[in-house]
Amino acid sequence: MCCGAVASQATAGESVKVVVPENAPAVKTDAIAGAGAELVRVPPTLAARIAASNQIAQSRGYAEIPPFDDRRVIAGQGTIGLEIAEDRKDEPPAAVLVPVSGGGLISGIAAAVHALSPDTRIIGVEPELAADARASLHSGTRVAWPTADVTRTMADSLRVEQVGELPFAHIREYVSDIVTVTDEEMLTTVRRLARQARLVAEPGGSVAVAAALFRSAAELGTAEPGTGGGPLVAILSGGNIDPALLGDVLSYTG
Amino acid sequence: MCCGAVASQATAGESVKVVVPENAPAVKTDAIAGAGAELVRVPPTLAARIAASNQIAQSRGYAEIPPFDDRRVIAGQGTIGLEIAEDRKDEPPAAVLVPVSGGGLISGIAAAVHALSPDTRIIGVEPELAADARASLHSGTRVAWPTADVTRTMADSLRVEQVGELPFAHIREYVSDIVTVTDEEMLTTVRRLARQARLVAEPGGSVAVAAALFRSAAELGTAEPGTGGGPLVAILSGGNIDPALLGDVLSYTG
Repeated sequence: MCCGAVASQATAGESVKVVVPENAPAVKTDAIAGAGAELVRVPPTLAARIAASNQIAQSRGYAEIPPFDDRRVIAGQGTIGLEIAEDRKDEPPAAVLVPVSGGGLISGIAAAVHALSPDTRIIGVEPELAADARASLHSGTRVAWPTADVTRTMADSLRVEQVGELPFAHIREYVSDIVTVTDEEMLTTVRRLARQARLVAEPGGSVAVAAALFRSAAELGTAEPGTGGGPLVAILSGGNIDPALLGDVLSYTG
Repeated sequence: MCCGAVASQATAGESVKVVVPENAPAVKTDAIAGAGAELVRVPPTLAARIAASNQIAQSRGYAEIPPFDDRRVIAGQGTIGLEIAEDRKDEPPAAVLVPVSGGGLISGIAAAVHALSPDTRIIGVEPELAADARASLHSGTRVAWPTADVTRTMADSLRVEQVGELPFAHIREYVSDIVTVTDEEMLTTVRRLARQARLVAEPGGSVAVAAALFRSAAELGTAEPGTGGGPLVAILSGGNIDPALLGDVLSYTG
C-alpha cells in the first residue's frame, strides 16, 4: 500500500478505513474512495499514519494491515520472488531490481530469491531524492531522512522516511546494494514503458526499470567476477499515475 | 501492419519502404521513420497502397509483404490462435473476439482456434462506422464501403474499405458473426484499459475488448443453447495511440 496503513473491520466487507498522507495524489485517493473505503487523511509523515492506524484499530476493534513492517505482508510479497525463481530456473537472473520505500516488497522478494537462486544479486532502487534506505544499508544502521527531504521526489509511493525494522534486517541479510535514480530518469522510463512496452507505470513504480535502463553493470555490481551473466529482472509495481501527468510525459519528445 | 503494404529489399537490413495512407497518424509514421524505414505516402485508399507497393516490388526488386491478403501473413497471425487454444485447453473459451480490418488477423486466429477448440465461437469486431466486413458476412458477398465512410472512425487501423478475398473465404468458413462498437465505446475502453489494466491501447486496438464490455451475451451469441459457457477471450492489438489523445482520454471522468 503506497499511502500508509489500512485498518479494516474484522467482519469481511463491512467497513474499511485507509490512512493516507494529505499530499497523496487524487488518482489514488479517488480510487480508494471509489472502491468504497473511507479515507483518513493525516499529515505526510509515516509516524502520523502509523499512529492513526493504531488508534483506529485499538479504539474500534479493526484489524490492522501495516504497509511493510509485518511478517505477513513480507511473506505475501515474497510470492513475487517465488514466481521469478520459477520462471527463470533455467537461466537464473544476474540481478533482481526492486523499488524500496518502507522495504516490505524487497524483503519478501529477497528472501525468496536468495533461497531459490542464491547467485542472483538483489538490488534495491530508490529515488535519489529519498535515498534513506541506501544510506541505511551503507552505514549499517537505520537512517531516517526528514519528511521535507523525501517529499521532494515526484515518486509519491517512495516517500517513506525510513525503512522498517524487520525489512532492514532482511535488507542487511539479502540485499547486495541499493542504487538510486533521478526523477528525470523515472519520467523517461514512464514514457518508454508506455510507448514501447504499452504499460502504464507511475514514477515510483518505474524506478527498478529505470535502474535497468540507466545504471551500468558496474553500478549494479553485475560486472563483478562470479556473477552469472544472466538477465536483469526489474519489478514494475505501481500504475496509479495522474492522467494529466501521463499525458504530459507522453507528449515530451526529448 | 496498420498502414498498408510493406516492401523490403530481399537482402536483410538493407532498405525498407513502408507504404502508408497520407492520413496515417504521426505516432505511427514517426515510429516507422524512427526504425529506419522510408515512408511512401499515398492517398488513403487500400487500392492506392497496394498499387504503390506492387510498383516498388516490381520496378526495384523488393520483396513485398502485403498487409492481410496473403497465406503467409495469415499463417503467422494464426499462431495467436494456437496460443489461445493451448492456454485455455482445460476450459475452452465460449468465444474469441478479434478486431477486423482487412481480415488477416481473424483469418489466422479463426483457422487455428476452429481446429483445436471447435466449440469456441469466433466473433469479429469492427467500428460501427467501418462495418464493411459485417455487411459482407451478412450478405454473403464481399462488400466495399466508400473510403469517405470508413475514414469517419477514429480507429485508423480499421479503415480498410473491404476485407481481402482470402480472408473472406476464412471468415465465411470459421467466423460465427461480426459485431460492431461505437467510437465512444472504444474511447471508454482505452481509458479503462489504461486505468484498470495498465495497458496502452489505440482505439482500433481496443474494439474486441470493447465488444466484451459492451455487447451482451445475446449479441455475441454466447447465450445460445450449446455454447459452452467458458470465458471470453478478446484480442488487444495495437497500442500506437497519439499521446495527446491518450492524455485527453485518461483525463475524461465521465
